[in-house]
Amino acid sequence: MEQKIPYKIYLNENELPKQWYNVRADMKVKPAPLLNPGTLQPLTQEDLAPIFCEELNRQELDNDTRWFDIPQEILDFYKMYRPAPLVRAYFLEKALGTPAKIYYKFEGNNTSGSHKLNSAVAQAYYAKKQGLKGVTTETGAGQWGTALSMACSFFDLDCQVYMVKCSYEQKPFRREVMRTYGAKVTPSPSNTTNVGRQILEKFPGTTGSLGCAISEAVEAAVSQPGYRYVLGSVLNQVLLHQTVIGLEVQTACKKYGIKPDIIIGCAGGGSNLGGLISPFIGEMLRGEAQYKVIAVEPASCPSFTRGKFAYDFADTGMICPLAKMYTLGSQFIPSANHAGGLRFHGMSPILSQLYHDGLFEARSVEQTAVFEAAQMFARIEGTLPAPESSHAIRAAIDEALKCKETGEEKTIVFGLSGTGYFDMVAYQKFNDGVMNDTIPTDEEIAANLANLPKVE
Amino acid sequence: MEQKIPYKIYLNENELPKQWYNVRADMKVKPAPLLNPGTLQPLTQEDLAPIFCEELNRQELDNDTRWFDIPQEILDFYKMYRPAPLVRAYFLEKALGTPAKIYYKFEGNNTSGSHKLNSAVAQAYYAKKQGLKGVTTETGAGQWGTALSMACSFFDLDCQVYMVKCSYEQKPFRREVMRTYGAKVTPSPSNTTNVGRQILEKFPGTTGSLGCAISEAVEAAVSQPGYRYVLGSVLNQVLLHQTVIGLEVQTACKKYGIKPDIIIGCAGGGSNLGGLISPFIGEMLRGEAQYKVIAVEPASCPSFTRGKFAYDFADTGMICPLAKMYTLGSQFIPSANHAGGLRFHGMSPILSQLYHDGLFEARSVEQTAVFEAAQMFARIEGTLPAPESSHAIRAAIDEALKCKETGEEKTIVFGLSGTGYFDMVAYQKFNDGVMNDTIPTDEEIAANLANLPKVE
Repeated sequence: MEQKIPYKIYLNENELPKQWYNVRADMKVKPAPLLNPGTLQPLTQEDLAPIFCEELNRQELDNDTRWFDIPQEILDFYKMYRPAPLVRAYFLEKALGTPAKIYYKFEGNNTSGSHKLNSAVAQAYYAKKQGLKGVTTETGAGQWGTALSMACSFFDLDCQVYMVKCSYEQKPFRREVMRTYGAKVTPSPSNTTNVGRQILEKFPGTTGSLGCAISEAVEAAVSQPGYRYVLGSVLNQVLLHQTVIGLEVQTACKKYGIKPDIIIGCAGGGSNLGGLISPFIGEMLRGEAQYKVIAVEPASCPSFTRGKFAYDFADTGMICPLAKMYTLGSQFIPSANHAGGLRFHGMSPILSQLYHDGLFEARSVEQTAVFEAAQMFARIEGTLPAPESSHAIRAAIDEALKCKETGEEKTIVFGLSGTGYFDMVAYQKFNDGVMNDTIPTDEEIAANLANLPKVE
Repeated sequence: MEQKIPYKIYLNENELPKQWYNVRADMKVKPAPLLNPGTLQPLTQEDLAPIFCEELNRQELDNDTRWFDIPQEILDFYKMYRPAPLVRAYFLEKALGTPAKIYYKFEGNNTSGSHKLNSAVAQAYYAKKQGLKGVTTETGAGQWGTALSMACSFFDLDCQVYMVKCSYEQKPFRREVMRTYGAKVTPSPSNTTNVGRQILEKFPGTTGSLGCAISEAVEAAVSQPGYRYVLGSVLNQVLLHQTVIGLEVQTACKKYGIKPDIIIGCAGGGSNLGGLISPFIGEMLRGEAQYKVIAVEPASCPSFTRGKFAYDFADTGMICPLAKMYTLGSQFIPSANHAGGLRFHGMSPILSQLYHDGLFEARSVEQTAVFEAAQMFARIEGTLPAPESSHAIRAAIDEALKCKETGEEKTIVFGLSGTGYFDMVAYQKFNDGVMNDTIPTDEEIAANLANLPKVE
C-alpha cells in the first residue's frame, strides 16, 4: 500500500490547541438556559455556586466568548496522553472495497479508555484552583469515574464516586482502577446520604440507577464543606473542554490537505459528539464550509430521532435543573437488554439546538449491527472499540459502502471515542450469539413524553 | 515546565525500523544451541520443521546474519500500532525531586496491551506465507494469546489457544477478547489432546499449569495437518522480532540528542528485555558505547539472580527442547501468592549468555515494592502499568532516587512493556492491603537445581 498520508497522524506538541472553542458564540439561536427546578427561572451564577466550581459556572453560562484559553497546567496534563492520533483506516477501506477515504480520531489511548479525561482534568483543575478539598460524581459503566479519579489523583484532590450498585458489583475491575487512583467508590444507593437511605428503605433490594447515583453525588457535594459536584457530559462546559478533539482533527486535516465530506460521532449525552463536531459546525455557522454531520445513537435510546425538543429534567430523580433538549422523558430507561452505553434519556442543550436548526442529521442503529461493526473493526484495524464508539463505526461503514455503490471518493471522519477493554461482558453476549435488539414502542415513548414538565 | 524534548516522542513512519537486529551476530560467545530432548544433540532445521514454521526456524538457528529485512506486510501491520512513543516522565522526575532524566518506552498502546504483538504478527505472517491453516499456542495470563489472536485474525489464520484453566475461569475478559478476534480458546487440561486426557484422568480436579498447556498446544500442532506451534518468549526468533523496541528507542535518542546512561527492563522469558536492550548491547559488543543495563525480575522467580547457568528443559512437562540458560529448574513454580507475571523458570538463551558474559546486571524486587511503584506511576504519569512492567518502574525509581542522593543527572530509559487493565485482581489485592511477599528459600531452589538434566 502506497500513500503520502501516514497511517497515524500525531500532531507535534506545538500544534496542539491552546484554547477551547465555544460554539455558542457562533450560534444565531443560543441554547435555551437551564432552569431552576423550583422557580422555573433561568439559573444564575449564584444558583450554581453551591453545586459547581466558579470558573466552570462561568463557562457554563457564557454564550458569547468564542475562545477560552486552556490553563498551562491543563495543557501539561494533556501532553501526557494527547495528541490523540487521527488514523487512516487503510485496512478497513481495503476490506470494504470502498473508494471512500476513512479516518478516525482515536481518543482511547489513556487509562480511562476514552475522551472523558479531556473534561475531567479541566474540572479537577478548576476545583483545585478554587481551593476545594474534593469533588463528587456518579458513574454508571465507569469511564467517567475512572477519568475523574485519574485527574483528581494528579491534582491531589479527594474524589468520591457514587457507582450504580449493579455496575459496582458486575464491574469490579473498573472499581479497582478508580481505587488505584485513590478514589473513594461507593455503591449507590448507599447509607452515606439521606436520599440513599430513603431509597434503600423504600426498595431494600435495589441495584441502583444512574438517577439515584446523581442525587447521592449532588447531596454529598452540597453537604460537605469544600466539595462540589462534577459531571462528564450534557453540560455546556463539558462540550467546551471536549472541543480539543475536533480542533486537533481540524489541524491534522489542514496539515495534510484532508477535506472531510462526512463527520460521524456517537451520541449519548453529547460529550464526544459535541467535542468532535463543534469546530466543524462552527465553520458551517460562519458560512466557511459545508459538511454532512451525522449523530449516531442506539435504537434502544433514540433521543434525537424519536424524542421531543422540550424542557425536561436532567435526572430521573427530578431534582436537577431543567434543560431544553431532545428527550425521551426523564423516566425513560432503555431496555435492560441494551449493552452499549449511550443510555441518557436526554441530550446536550447545545447539540439539541443545533440539531433542531438543521446543522446535522441523526440516525439510530440496533445493537447487534453495532457489535458486528465493532468485531469487524477490531479484526481489521486492530483496536477493540468501546460499544459506544462502535455506533459511529457502524455508520462510517454504512457510508463507506454507499460510496462503493455510487463510486464516490468521499472522505469520512469518525470519532473512535474509546476502547472496550472493560466491556467484555457485552462482547461475550455477542460472541455467544445471545445478543438481540430491543427498540421501544411508539406507545412507550409517547407515554413517557406525556409527562414532560409544563414550562412556558 | 519548559523543555525542548516533547513529553512523547513519536517517530515518523519513515523513521521506523525496516530490519530486525540479530544480536547473536555480534556476540563473541554464541548462545548454546537448543538440544533434542531425546538425543541431546543440537536441534536442526529438520528437527524443528514439524513444530515451527520454516522461516522462523531459519531465524532461530541463524547466529550470523546481523540484520533481517522485515517483510512489507509486517511493516504495514506495525504501522497500525507503532511507533510506540518514547515518553519523558517529567511529572515523575518532579515528584521524585531527582536530577535524573527519566524516559520510558511505552509498548501498551494496542489492544493486546503489550509488546507481545511485535512477534505475534511476525509469526502469524510467516505461518500464512508458508500456506499453513493455523497455529496453536498456550497462554497463562493471556497477553500472548491476545496478541496472537489479533495477528491471526488479521492474516485470516486459525488460532487455537490453550489457556491454563484457572486463568480461563478467573480471566473471562481476556478469553472474550481472544474470542472476539476469532480465536478458539480451550481451557487446559482439556479432552482435545492425549496429554490433556492423561492429566485429567490422573488429576481430575486440576486447574492446569503453563507446562501442561504447552504440551497440549505442541501436540495439537503436530497432530493437525497444516498447523504449527508458536511461542511468545524465550526463543531467539522472538527476541529478534522484539528488537523493534530498542531500535525505535535508538532512533528517538539520536533524533533528540538523548544519551542514555542506564537502561532498565523487566525479565520473564526475555522477550521484552531482549527487544529493548539488544541494540544497545550490540553497541557495547562492537565497542561503540557503554551503558549500565539492568534486568529486573521478581524475587519470587529469580532465575538470573539465584538460578544456575545450565542446560534445562524449557517446560515443566520435560518434552520440549533443552536450552542452556539461567534456570531455577524446570519443576520450579513461583508461589501462588505471586501476582505479577514473569513466572517462567528459565530465561532466553541469548540473554543468559550475555548475562553470563557480564554485559548487564540483574536484580530482583519484591512484589509489594513493585505494586507501590506501579500505583505511584499510575497516579503521577497517568498510565496504569502491567505488573510485569512495574518491575522496571521500581528499578527506575530506585536509580532516580540514587541520583537525587548523589546529585548526578543521569539519563534513565526503561521499558514500559504493557498496561495492567486485565490485571485488576492483583491490584485489588494491593489496594486491599492483603498482598505480601514470598521468596523461595535457598533449600527450595537448591532442591530444584539438584534435578537438572545431565548434559555434557
